[in-house]
Amino acid sequence: MTVLYLSDPERGAVFRAAFAKALPDVAFHIGQAPDPLAVRWLITWTVPADLARYQNLRLIISVGAGVDQFDLTALPPGVGVVRMLEPGIPQQMQEYITLATLALHRDLPAYLGQQRTGLWKAGRNLPAEERRVGVMGLGQLGQAALTALRAFGFPLAGWARSPRQIEGVECFTDLDAFLARTDLLICLLPLTTETGNILDAGLFARLPRGARLVHAGRGRHLDHAALIAALNEGQLSAAVLDVTAPEPLPQEHPLWSHPQVILTPHIACQTRPGDGARHVISAISADLAGQPIPGLVDRMRGY
Amino acid sequence: MTVLYLSDPERGAVFRAAFAKALPDVAFHIGQAPDPLAVRWLITWTVPADLARYQNLRLIISVGAGVDQFDLTALPPGVGVVRMLEPGIPQQMQEYITLATLALHRDLPAYLGQQRTGLWKAGRNLPAEERRVGVMGLGQLGQAALTALRAFGFPLAGWARSPRQIEGVECFTDLDAFLARTDLLICLLPLTTETGNILDAGLFARLPRGARLVHAGRGRHLDHAALIAALNEGQLSAAVLDVTAPEPLPQEHPLWSHPQVILTPHIACQTRPGDGARHVISAISADLAGQPIPGLVDRMRGY
Repeated sequence: MTVLYLSDPERGAVFRAAFAKALPDVAFHIGQAPDPLAVRWLITWTVPADLARYQNLRLIISVGAGVDQFDLTALPPGVGVVRMLEPGIPQQMQEYITLATLALHRDLPAYLGQQRTGLWKAGRNLPAEERRVGVMGLGQLGQAALTALRAFGFPLAGWARSPRQIEGVECFTDLDAFLARTDLLICLLPLTTETGNILDAGLFARLPRGARLVHAGRGRHLDHAALIAALNEGQLSAAVLDVTAPEPLPQEHPLWSHPQVILTPHIACQTRPGDGARHVISAISADLAGQPIPGLVDRMRGY
Repeated sequence: MTVLYLSDPERGAVFRAAFAKALPDVAFHIGQAPDPLAVRWLITWTVPADLARYQNLRLIISVGAGVDQFDLTALPPGVGVVRMLEPGIPQQMQEYITLATLALHRDLPAYLGQQRTGLWKAGRNLPAEERRVGVMGLGQLGQAALTALRAFGFPLAGWARSPRQIEGVECFTDLDAFLARTDLLICLLPLTTETGNILDAGLFARLPRGARLVHAGRGRHLDHAALIAALNEGQLSAAVLDVTAPEPLPQEHPLWSHPQVILTPHIACQTRPGDGARHVISAISADLAGQPIPGLVDRMRGY
């Protein structure tokens, strides 16, 4: 019974130590396994090209939030896919979404522009009660974001494919109705075949004029050219982005220097190795015990 | 019984309408009063040069948060000074302090620098539990800020001249001990003769190396040259400032272009005219009824 770990070796050392303590009977290998047929669990960010060697594989466990980097349709049918669940991820996402939302609510991109030219000019602060915030994606991260934003008094809404009930949040399944009432849009969707390129010109056009965008989903949710056009044309007034396609964003890409954009290099959430190891150990322990596996993905839905 | 209003006339029209409804027997004049001896209450940001004309004046009421713009020692002894209390002010301060604190906690100044050069490079996120935040000034605004920050898991401390007890906040009267444990310092002090220039080289030197500063008090709390020196020398690593001395900050001032500084033009809080009028009316109504006046300042303490 072997675990094969195929990611950053420094973090791997933390995982190895945690496994030695919690699951001493499970062999833990970093980089390669002496006997591929013994590998039951693979801890990785990407699917290795030689996946077929691991004929007794039970689970592929992602080292980061999200599983969109895996081609779920191409994996062997009997293999389960587990996403990273660790308490630091929703906590960091709450920090990032609160920072980005308040930055847009309080006109930080415009003030940064004034700072560049030495212009001291106060705009008018809009009361939070008049800034309608909407979150796309009501999974663990979307709900964590809404919890953090609740304290500020924004009228909150959420959109998901299936009906939800969240206290203090107006939940929509109708995307048009959700967009029409959203002055500040936050994208925390999982990336699936259905959500790719969802943030496009047509979607921006259905927001109120001058709306603002926080995007901390995946780069491929966003039509980058449509965002720039919507900003230049005034349909959107500012954006905070933590993800792009590709990553790293090439140095010459116009988003870097757009005056209405704040761009961070995919730092909203980072898996902390100790907490990440704890989650992986709990998933493997559950598998060994025949219990429900925390973080197991519905491969049909893609999340 | 006359009110004389000496501030922005557009906001004055909102005040006039509110007074007509709430206190119809009180005459309300904007800009000047036909009979100076009838003036009982002055609503203003600065003390007019001809104050001596208003021999029956009872209260000077500030149209903004803070009364440091008045020379309290030079006012006639019988005149009370009232500061602005309206619910929008602590709410806006919570937004601004949360924005500024998270911006520094999550290294936004450094990422803005990377954005200017098109550099995609992720740093390590420090857990909130390892970022010790400290608030100087535990009045209404300092307490509001602490309430908003509590949700994020920072170890919180506060410093004030007199002992305080605030749930979940380690309260200090010893400034040295407070500074020694503070990685991210927030200044929300009132400006008095004792607190002027308090943010100086000596104070910065008592913070842990690489500490961060949010300043939303008054420009004259801060030794601007000492801040720039501490940033350049690495004693401080970044700052968010909403106030400077003078305001507006001259276009050629080096703070504008400092890469570790985010500078906003005194926009943390703005008095909303409707709420401001409600507070002024409640203060004057209390004065008429011989009740305790909300917002009355202790002229000896200066706040």
